[in-house]
Amino acid sequence: MSQAAPILLTPGPLTTSDRTRQAMLRDWGSWDADFNQITARIRKEVLNIVHGTGTHECVPLQGSGTFSVEAAIGTLVPRNGHVLVPSNGAYCQRLAKICKVLGRRLTTIDYTEEKQVSPADVDRALAADPTITHVAVVHCETGAGVLNPLHEIALVVAKHGRGLIIDAMSSFGALEIDARRTPFDAVVAASGKCLEGVPGMGFVVIKRSTLEKCEGNCHSLSMDLYDQWVYMEKTTQWRFTPPTHVVAALDTAIAQYVEEGGLPARGGRYARNCKALIDGLATLGFRSFLDPAIQAPIIVTFHAPDDANYDFKTFYQEVKKRGYILYPGKLTQVETFRVGCMGHFGDAGIPGAVAAIADTLKAMGIRQVTAAEPA
Amino acid sequence: MSQAAPILLTPGPLTTSDRTRQAMLRDWGSWDADFNQITARIRKEVLNIVHGTGTHECVPLQGSGTFSVEAAIGTLVPRNGHVLVPSNGAYCQRLAKICKVLGRRLTTIDYTEEKQVSPADVDRALAADPTITHVAVVHCETGAGVLNPLHEIALVVAKHGRGLIIDAMSSFGALEIDARRTPFDAVVAASGKCLEGVPGMGFVVIKRSTLEKCEGNCHSLSMDLYDQWVYMEKTTQWRFTPPTHVVAALDTAIAQYVEEGGLPARGGRYARNCKALIDGLATLGFRSFLDPAIQAPIIVTFHAPDDANYDFKTFYQEVKKRGYILYPGKLTQVETFRVGCMGHFGDAGIPGAVAAIADTLKAMGIRQVTAAEPA
Repeated sequence: MSQAAPILLTPGPLTTSDRTRQAMLRDWGSWDADFNQITARIRKEVLNIVHGTGTHECVPLQGSGTFSVEAAIGTLVPRNGHVLVPSNGAYCQRLAKICKVLGRRLTTIDYTEEKQVSPADVDRALAADPTITHVAVVHCETGAGVLNPLHEIALVVAKHGRGLIIDAMSSFGALEIDARRTPFDAVVAASGKCLEGVPGMGFVVIKRSTLEKCEGNCHSLSMDLYDQWVYMEKTTQWRFTPPTHVVAALDTAIAQYVEEGGLPARGGRYARNCKALIDGLATLGFRSFLDPAIQAPIIVTFHAPDDANYDFKTFYQEVKKRGYILYPGKLTQVETFRVGCMGHFGDAGIPGAVAAIADTLKAMGIRQVTAAEPA
Repeated sequence: MSQAAPILLTPGPLTTSDRTRQAMLRDWGSWDADFNQITARIRKEVLNIVHGTGTHECVPLQGSGTFSVEAAIGTLVPRNGHVLVPSNGAYCQRLAKICKVLGRRLTTIDYTEEKQVSPADVDRALAADPTITHVAVVHCETGAGVLNPLHEIALVVAKHGRGLIIDAMSSFGALEIDARRTPFDAVVAASGKCLEGVPGMGFVVIKRSTLEKCEGNCHSLSMDLYDQWVYMEKTTQWRFTPPTHVVAALDTAIAQYVEEGGLPARGGRYARNCKALIDGLATLGFRSFLDPAIQAPIIVTFHAPDDANYDFKTFYQEVKKRGYILYPGKLTQVETFRVGCMGHFGDAGIPGAVAAIADTLKAMGIRQVTAAEPA
């Protein structure tokens, strides 16, 4: 039953547990009460994770995480709304692109990829432009791996009385978001990230008093989270065919999340992975791209070896042969690669990956790993 | 490994084979070449099924089938386009609703649920209104189970030089659609129907010369089939995280489809199921709702028993206890229930369901199954 597949050290899809995958060995009728109890349980548990029970609603949606991000913007931001996106990477740029495609007015604050979003900048932008109705922010910007100061940004947005939509795709369940102290309108995440389910659905946690006012905003039938919520409340069913096996896998993955000890345990494990990864690769001469103070324990960007024998494709293939799948860099100016800290693999996973990378360097004849320090 | 779950006699999700579900026991990196070969194979095989190789493109999309239907309309119909929807049921109404939400101009031809769409009506409507740019039609209208005369409609639409978008959700792979003789711009279907994969993705087969002109039409980032196609051609990857396990299951399901003998075998099996179902339930006194001449071998609507002891909820539960999941009726005027003919279950499946229904009638004390014939 266990897989011979390589361990995925990527931003997702991730390596999942045998138990999670085995939950997909049964077919479910999507109209049947047995299945709808699974949906209800997921919605309840997701709310628990952000302490939103009683104040917020969890609305699941078919598709990848990006579908849920688009759905959140489309459903929450009125057609004449105006969205501020503080942008320090690829996933912030995707938020901005969604606003453009959906015809929502857009303003950005642009940062380079190694910087955090600054709450003070958001404060100034909101003070300067009262037409901005919403701020859309990425919690952990997976492009480089930066952790943005979400709580501080949320307080600024609340002070100005604007709406806040959080893309928490790669942080939800591992890094704290507490609805009792961090004000927000919507938090978006997906099944195949820190909850360690399989990919195929997302979900949006929305403040109920906000959601109640969202009828008719959405640009799409399938992505209308207001309609999805109303229908689900009335019937206990999804509006359109749910990915039943993915839903069952997420339910089982969440059960394991709770058994593991919830957010502190999950976040703690990823933080240990992250430290073991950075320390282990440092012994081989690799430098991580970000200042450790703003590095999220989710995915780490490393400078590529400064050696004529290095090319990413061969490096990737050789490490894969040794049992680990890495991820390409996403930076425009610097050659990098990325290694994820998320997923279901044992304590031996990261040391194993470090050993595989060490072995690959030898096999490729790479000696100069560390580039000269920038002047 | 085999499931104890009931057999699903529904319009989908369906009962799948053990082999298809077991294909989900492995995790895949969505950036990895091994996974992208799976995607490429699915795209090729889907084109084969409609004989579209060389002329058409298969563009897969995350989400339920409705997401793909919306994506097809959003991508193919320009924002100032005008869509004619000949409507004889719930899924036609959904097409119409999508046009409304997307702001595409809409004209409908309305039929009652027991009638086929008439090609002559479509001909007259297109002749009368040259502003109509596209016709959107449902092949098998699952609301009541009507098979619409797709080939004849397609010839009429082609004669007028308009675009044709076909919702073939519950017919694709079982009922013939041959791109060499039936002209169309797009055919939409999904993983969890007649191909007997699990739900979680759809796909649209699009005429390449049409698709090439669709840049910038779409109302949505996630659902833009032009962007999805261009990106996939360039990188071999999906634009946003694919539902990797669902994709792997569909690949395995298609391999079994080909082994079974492709469309004639699959369609033949469903037709035998359909006949066994109608004949078997007739022996218990049940009347099917549609004229047999327009009944698709996909899902059958039956009149509910005309007996004070009957209620659908109890009937459903009792049949489920005996191992089969039925589906509620979707008609507005008549009390009905539906039984599907699709899915991976052996020759004993339909006789088993008929026996379970017979047993349920006894358990519920239902004696009057056949209503008096309508006057």
